[in-house]
Amino acid sequence: MSQSLDIAVIGATGTVGETLVQILEEREFPVGNLHLLASGESAGASVPFKGRNLRVRDVADFDFSQVHLAFFAAGEAVTRSFAMRATAAGCSLIDLSGALDPADAPSLVPEANPASLDALTAPYRLTSPSASAVALACVLAPLGDLLKPQRLSVMASLAVSSRGREAVTELARQTAELLNARPLEPRFFDRQIAFNVLAQAGAPDADGHISLERRLAGEIKQLLGLPELRVSATCALAPVFFGDSLAVSVVAEQPVDLERVRERLAKAPGVEFVEEEGDYPTAVGDAVGQDSVYVGRVRGGLDDPSELNLWIASDNARKGAALNAVQSAELLIKHYLSKILT
Amino acid sequence: MSQSLDIAVIGATGTVGETLVQILEEREFPVGNLHLLASGESAGASVPFKGRNLRVRDVADFDFSQVHLAFFAAGEAVTRSFAMRATAAGCSLIDLSGALDPADAPSLVPEANPASLDALTAPYRLTSPSASAVALACVLAPLGDLLKPQRLSVMASLAVSSRGREAVTELARQTAELLNARPLEPRFFDRQIAFNVLAQAGAPDADGHISLERRLAGEIKQLLGLPELRVSATCALAPVFFGDSLAVSVVAEQPVDLERVRERLAKAPGVEFVEEEGDYPTAVGDAVGQDSVYVGRVRGGLDDPSELNLWIASDNARKGAALNAVQSAELLIKHYLSKILT
Repeated sequence: MSQSLDIAVIGATGTVGETLVQILEEREFPVGNLHLLASGESAGASVPFKGRNLRVRDVADFDFSQVHLAFFAAGEAVTRSFAMRATAAGCSLIDLSGALDPADAPSLVPEANPASLDALTAPYRLTSPSASAVALACVLAPLGDLLKPQRLSVMASLAVSSRGREAVTELARQTAELLNARPLEPRFFDRQIAFNVLAQAGAPDADGHISLERRLAGEIKQLLGLPELRVSATCALAPVFFGDSLAVSVVAEQPVDLERVRERLAKAPGVEFVEEEGDYPTAVGDAVGQDSVYVGRVRGGLDDPSELNLWIASDNARKGAALNAVQSAELLIKHYLSKILT
Repeated sequence: MSQSLDIAVIGATGTVGETLVQILEEREFPVGNLHLLASGESAGASVPFKGRNLRVRDVADFDFSQVHLAFFAAGEAVTRSFAMRATAAGCSLIDLSGALDPADAPSLVPEANPASLDALTAPYRLTSPSASAVALACVLAPLGDLLKPQRLSVMASLAVSSRGREAVTELARQTAELLNARPLEPRFFDRQIAFNVLAQAGAPDADGHISLERRLAGEIKQLLGLPELRVSATCALAPVFFGDSLAVSVVAEQPVDLERVRERLAKAPGVEFVEEEGDYPTAVGDAVGQDSVYVGRVRGGLDDPSELNLWIASDNARKGAALNAVQSAELLIKHYLSKILT
């Protein structure tokens, strides 16, 4: 591709934003000018790109008409504050925070629902779904017609990096304190996360669900094109720095043909199927730093031949967020380059 | 109770066995002579009981006719080797390994299915179920008639102590190595467990299930008296020393009345219901060292009003194993003391 795009990355100093900048470089994304942005206190830092250190500037002062495409990799609040401004300036955007209405900014996982791009109009707005939804979609989309899923139960053991850099530091600090038998005074989290599992990765709403659970359920139904799917989701936090682990149980319409499931998974794009005897994938041992979603422990139900159980491991910051956003951008410009450049 | 029983504890040097001896003392269980036993290399160690250090002897040399009741808290292999010998000597037994046929040694959780004692004949044989089944039974038994459960999906994040003392040491060692940036050479586990989640707590069978998952499914159906219940179970290992965490999803026969669920849980024996605003129980923060199973995150389905979701935290070695076995023994002698003493 000889033409290049001017790009903004909002949230460039975060775990996802920094990975995103790195992936733009790795994949030789056709970047013209790259503007790194962040909100408030993070402005002024610098982030490496193609051998140079780029200064991170305050998003509040940014003129979005300078860029063709913006990645929103900061929190929901930042997307809510600036996405309209970007769109009004004619800038297409890919939001990773989940703050936008799915009707305006549909979820895209290129391996799962590339056809959803067809209905877009400029300036283009897409959502890069939550990391768990990306991982699930990569694994379940190739099985859709085989399973005709009726119910989906997901227990996600999320890495603390899903809560940002401070959470990573805090897990390391707490662990060191405990190993040195020093008294623990939790910071960032309201309790001990080291050598413990926290039941919810965020604050619950009045019904007891956390926003990530609702987001995951809504996104996976859209990504699989299954609005009637009944989703049960629990998003817990494990004392793991990077890499999510998902225990997944699907109730299919009829008895599951496990051989065909294995055949499909072995060929699925973006998926690494681990099933040598007794082996299984893990977040840290397999998925972290990789561009694939890892799946294993493929097995039927203990009591129900229409059940499929799986174990998924995925790099939450890379494959689940930054890479999916960049892959989505690649697909977007493949479809609409001439319109994005005007 | 003025009469006392002569007791044997097999596996007295393990995490569960040592806790069991401690609980016999704490609860003033009517112990006459206490014989601490272990297999092979553990014989010769000593374990404290009522201010004395009792020598642990080799179970292979033990004459079971010396005791009224034996707790089998070593592995399945030890139970298989010696349970018959105990029964032949007229000794009643409570097995914690799951090695015995449920038809001969029914599972008992005193809070859940005390009536199952009625059908026993001397010498009495009971199974103290897997720690996850104990925790689930305490929480779900009081809800049985309310929910009429059709499906049960359990994702258990088990503490490494469920794999014994060596696993505890190995998690500590691996964690220290990583924090000190030294290269990791896994022992005991075949890979990194520190800051990671392992998809299976044991070796899978030809169908991909591990024995603990089959055990859990069989036991919970028996404990709840629901042979038709469809159970999906995943038993993973979390980098946690003690305390299991269970994400549970139940599909009920009809829409779930959450208020009545909360009322029942608040009154359930052996259960601590945690539901102040935004609060939830954790294994380490709440359950470890306690005699109750902790439950929280009570919520309905995102898409299905007939679904109930819960989070359970329980001390795997104490409430899930040693305490349940001692409570079972207490109930057994309440029913059958005169026959046990003959």
